Amino acid sequence: MPETNAETARAAVDMESWVCPAPLRDSPNVLMGHGGGGAMSAELIEHLFLPAFGPAADAAMGDSAVLRVGAERLAFSTDSYVVKPLFFPGGSIGDLAVNGTVNDLAMAGAQPVALSTAFILEEGTALSELARVAHAVGTAALAAGVKLVTGDTKVVDSGHGDGVYINTAGIGLVDKRADIRPQRARPGDAVIVSGDIGVHGVAVMSCREGLEFATTVASDTAPLHGLVAAMLDTGADIHTLRDPTRGGLGATLNEIAKAAGVGISLDEKVLPIPGDVRDACGLLGLDPLYVANEGKLIVFVALEDADRVLAAMHAHPYGGRAAMIGHCVTEHPGMVVARTALGGTRVVDLPIGEQLPRIC
Amino acid sequence: MPETNAETARAAVDMESWVCPAPLRDSPNVLMGHGGGGAMSAELIEHLFLPAFGPAADAAMGDSAVLRVGAERLAFSTDSYVVKPLFFPGGSIGDLAVNGTVNDLAMAGAQPVALSTAFILEEGTALSELARVAHAVGTAALAAGVKLVTGDTKVVDSGHGDGVYINTAGIGLVDKRADIRPQRARPGDAVIVSGDIGVHGVAVMSCREGLEFATTVASDTAPLHGLVAAMLDTGADIHTLRDPTRGGLGATLNEIAKAAGVGISLDEKVLPIPGDVRDACGLLGLDPLYVANEGKLIVFVALEDADRVLAAMHAHPYGGRAAMIGHCVTEHPGMVVARTALGGTRVVDLPIGEQLPRIC
Repeated sequence: MPETNAETARAAVDMESWVCPAPLRDSPNVLMGHGGGGAMSAELIEHLFLPAFGPAADAAMGDSAVLRVGAERLAFSTDSYVVKPLFFPGGSIGDLAVNGTVNDLAMAGAQPVALSTAFILEEGTALSELARVAHAVGTAALAAGVKLVTGDTKVVDSGHGDGVYINTAGIGLVDKRADIRPQRARPGDAVIVSGDIGVHGVAVMSCREGLEFATTVASDTAPLHGLVAAMLDTGADIHTLRDPTRGGLGATLNEIAKAAGVGISLDEKVLPIPGDVRDACGLLGLDPLYVANEGKLIVFVALEDADRVLAAMHAHPYGGRAAMIGHCVTEHPGMVVARTALGGTRVVDLPIGEQLPRIC
Repeated sequence: MPETNAETARAAVDMESWVCPAPLRDSPNVLMGHGGGGAMSAELIEHLFLPAFGPAADAAMGDSAVLRVGAERLAFSTDSYVVKPLFFPGGSIGDLAVNGTVNDLAMAGAQPVALSTAFILEEGTALSELARVAHAVGTAALAAGVKLVTGDTKVVDSGHGDGVYINTAGIGLVDKRADIRPQRARPGDAVIVSGDIGVHGVAVMSCREGLEFATTVASDTAPLHGLVAAMLDTGADIHTLRDPTRGGLGATLNEIAKAAGVGISLDEKVLPIPGDVRDACGLLGLDPLYVANEGKLIVFVALEDADRVLAAMHAHPYGGRAAMIGHCVTEHPGMVVARTALGGTRVVDLPIGEQLPRIC
């Protein structure tokens, strides 16, 4: 008897007969790299979450969604934060939980309106430590001008969890002038980064148990919606915005290249990498292109708009060291290629897993 | 030199000098009960989260928030799910993660529009297990008619986490006819429950490691926004709605009594408690009034509206065993008092911690 379409659709997500697809089959289990924001994270979404979710899932399922409500466009985003340790030079899990979600909204061109906060606490965590984290959340929310409107608290047994995990979800109103999507990057676009890269990752690693090293680097965690508003105020048509967090500039540029079907050509000489980040990366054997940022953005605009956007960024506290670092090309679509300081070229691949686990 | 107001405000949430207030001082650490939805959870919010968050926090910070966006009212809610085990009779963490957040929206009179899903995975969790959970999320979302629009995945080290934690946040559109708040419960109101109580908690406990017992009880996890719409369709003015999850009917009724400043009088004889729930509670030494439900609601309406609301509930698949179980009184404001089967009365207190940890 022929199956109906409905039966076929159901069979496609029949978990009884579900088999790990090839990209996941190398390990039958969750690995740290699945949370790293690189190729393994993308495979988990594409080959496990989306098929298992089935028709209820939006095919895009990106860092944020844009929903139409009446005459308004609403951005909606969520992130969980599991950074170790809870406090690090320049910030804490509380700052990340606010700024990270605010920035996901900002990258859709939205001004944040409201955040939810959901805590998963480990039994035995000092209440004074929790209060310090919650105070950091409140202080960051006040600074970002976003209200904490609803929340939840769960407690898990001692030994599970790691003191405090935080999830925030955010709602923002998309600027009426904005149509900002990875798919809008196009050949000829200027690629601009808002400042020094690699700072957050190095700051967290510098104080991680068993790995402490001396550095003056402090996390760059910051809310970026004000910077985005200043950029929109120039009247420039902003094509694409992203905050290069997990997986760093390398992962983010690869995702945009793939989404838009363009090549990206980077000029390594002009990448803003502070000396102490370079030193720390040398020490740890890391490539700064893949180290996380928490207060930086990458913007794609037409070349003729680049100067005024750069000028607006330079005038903003969070864009003072903005620099044009490359451009989009028709060659090597989906790929990122860097011109090295020595005049050669190298492919900047999408990282597989993560260089630095538990960084946000 | 006199402090400015701003300095005073800052000092009020100065974490360097923060001291646990009296209700929390009995333990300097997080206890399981802080996640139980009872008095300890309320104290944590009132005495730790709200002061530490400071002015960025909405004073209400309830299960959901209602935001005005243009001409629409938007409900926004979040919950994390840490239930043990991940699968139990009648459902899974995936069902709870969808239905729980959908129901928080529904209790504000909203139809759900979009959900975010954020997974915190334990390194080493079988991908096949994760796929089963994700499939349960997708199936429940399809059944509830809500889209999964954005998400996040983090991985924590093996031994931390418990396989899978899920956070969902939800956005819903509040029905234009609805003004549903705990504060609107008033003396004379009928108190109606939509069906059998205590079912979810007993189902989860029956299969928990070290505690297995034979029972036919399956979780009642279900999305309730359709039932709420049917109740609104009667034209009745619904004053208050709540889903009695953690802490059960006892905790929820106490919260409403306190928020509205009314007394609640319950008739124990008519409480719909299935025989096998009663048996299991006897075995475990639990009071069914405090056992969690995941597919039930409590509604407060004027007595003259009770019959038509009950009729609409009885006609709905999730309200077939709805019953009027009590009413609001001017006596004992803020308190819940039950008339026992023997004709006496007893105070139904807000539970302190939780009878059943990790139930959702």
